[in-house]
Amino acid sequence: MQTNLKKLTGKVISIVRKAAKITTAAYDVEEKDIPINIVTTADINVQKYLQHKLCKLIPGSAFFGEEGSTGDRHGEYVWVVDPIDGTANFARNIREFCISVALLHNDEAVLGVVYNPAQKRMYSACKNGGSFCNGKRIHTSETEFQKGMFCTAMSLYRKEFAPLCVQVINEAYAQCNDVRRFGSCALEICYLAEGICDLFFEFRVFPWDYAAALVILKEAGGYISGHLAEELHFDQASMVIAANSRENFEKLEGIVRKHIPEMPYHEVFR
Amino acid sequence: MQTNLKKLTGKVISIVRKAAKITTAAYDVEEKDIPINIVTTADINVQKYLQHKLCKLIPGSAFFGEEGSTGDRHGEYVWVVDPIDGTANFARNIREFCISVALLHNDEAVLGVVYNPAQKRMYSACKNGGSFCNGKRIHTSETEFQKGMFCTAMSLYRKEFAPLCVQVINEAYAQCNDVRRFGSCALEICYLAEGICDLFFEFRVFPWDYAAALVILKEAGGYISGHLAEELHFDQASMVIAANSRENFEKLEGIVRKHIPEMPYHEVFR
Repeated sequence: MQTNLKKLTGKVISIVRKAAKITTAAYDVEEKDIPINIVTTADINVQKYLQHKLCKLIPGSAFFGEEGSTGDRHGEYVWVVDPIDGTANFARNIREFCISVALLHNDEAVLGVVYNPAQKRMYSACKNGGSFCNGKRIHTSETEFQKGMFCTAMSLYRKEFAPLCVQVINEAYAQCNDVRRFGSCALEICYLAEGICDLFFEFRVFPWDYAAALVILKEAGGYISGHLAEELHFDQASMVIAANSRENFEKLEGIVRKHIPEMPYHEVFR
Repeated sequence: MQTNLKKLTGKVISIVRKAAKITTAAYDVEEKDIPINIVTTADINVQKYLQHKLCKLIPGSAFFGEEGSTGDRHGEYVWVVDPIDGTANFARNIREFCISVALLHNDEAVLGVVYNPAQKRMYSACKNGGSFCNGKRIHTSETEFQKGMFCTAMSLYRKEFAPLCVQVINEAYAQCNDVRRFGSCALEICYLAEGICDLFFEFRVFPWDYAAALVILKEAGGYISGHLAEELHFDQASMVIAANSRENFEKLEGIVRKHIPEMPYHEVFR
């Protein structure tokens, strides 16, 4: 299984690199039901390409993407894909967006590839195989909370929850060094894996946003969970809390728990 | 004067490009009086190089840099320089930092060069000469406030003011699209100039943070001021409000004015 996973990771990397060339195609932005959720033609074309190529890699595998799904979401092998994470950045030409591909095996994320074509950074990992960026081993930082760089956001798609996020941000900011928001969940979790940022909290994100980065962060030595330190699942919208170390994870999780003692939403994909 | 300024801009670009090579030298971080204000050896070496080269370009010109100054701050020609804006990013290997060089003529900023070596993006402008990125003309966006991307921060060096920033951020966020924090004031203002972000507010920044980007933003069609829409000066710590259009500037300025009706600090450099 281990050898196979490493080989498979290499193949996924090749596929993702080819898919990225589609992102350089002409920008052709159209609007979804909510204006802030921009979908570009590139988004759909990347997903189509990935769906075709990835499902061929593992015959019978299911595909769960931001732009549509096929097969059993709880089947033996499931690809969880965001063709472009950070679409708003992509559409604006902000160079912080990525393609995110995870593989689930019996509901566990075992492989992750996250690629930012604008900055040519390829993050990858498979279970028990370590994490890499552009082929070099990466690790989380040893930075303590007080000097930590905190990546976060304010519940973009449901702004009514922004005040809850602000409470968490205020308290964490008072105790850490500084805050960043680059605008891609997958990339920001990879920045923890790479050791250039240290803390992460998002109020409400989706499996395709975090599945691949979760593998990359865990294999780099980091910690990641949902609300109340519960393991993340890949069939629902989730809160995501992550950190470079167990100690910092527990501290950040405590801050979230204090301000958001109960899960404020339940959205399971059927 | 105009021809001279354009020629001078070209010369400054060459000098900045050479200075940037120093940033690739080994990271050697030491701490200033406050631990979050990281100064790297590169910072000091870049400033030394720029000071030497720029003051030779205009004999008798003064130099006002984050890492020290020479000459009369209100002389006829004054260079205002941040050798590395976004030092915390630079020290962490986050690819959002820049060299920022402005030229003041009788206290007016007439030339600006901002360069991000990690992403190879060279922003430049001189008075009445237009704005450029890597040699291509750039303009602010026509994005309306509601769809605007808002770059902001939370008063890093004086966190006791963070709650005031949060009030501004909360109200602006409710009315615009989303918030970003990349971690470099100069670059974020250039992102407005380039049309990839639209709104900007920082509570307390320094002349070397905004002098160059101010020229670049104005020449790209944007609006920028201090508190209560007052013109920015280059001898004090300032609030900075900026936007892609006059309309959006006035709206953002109104939000800041509402929550911060009086200037909460006065710090003039002697």
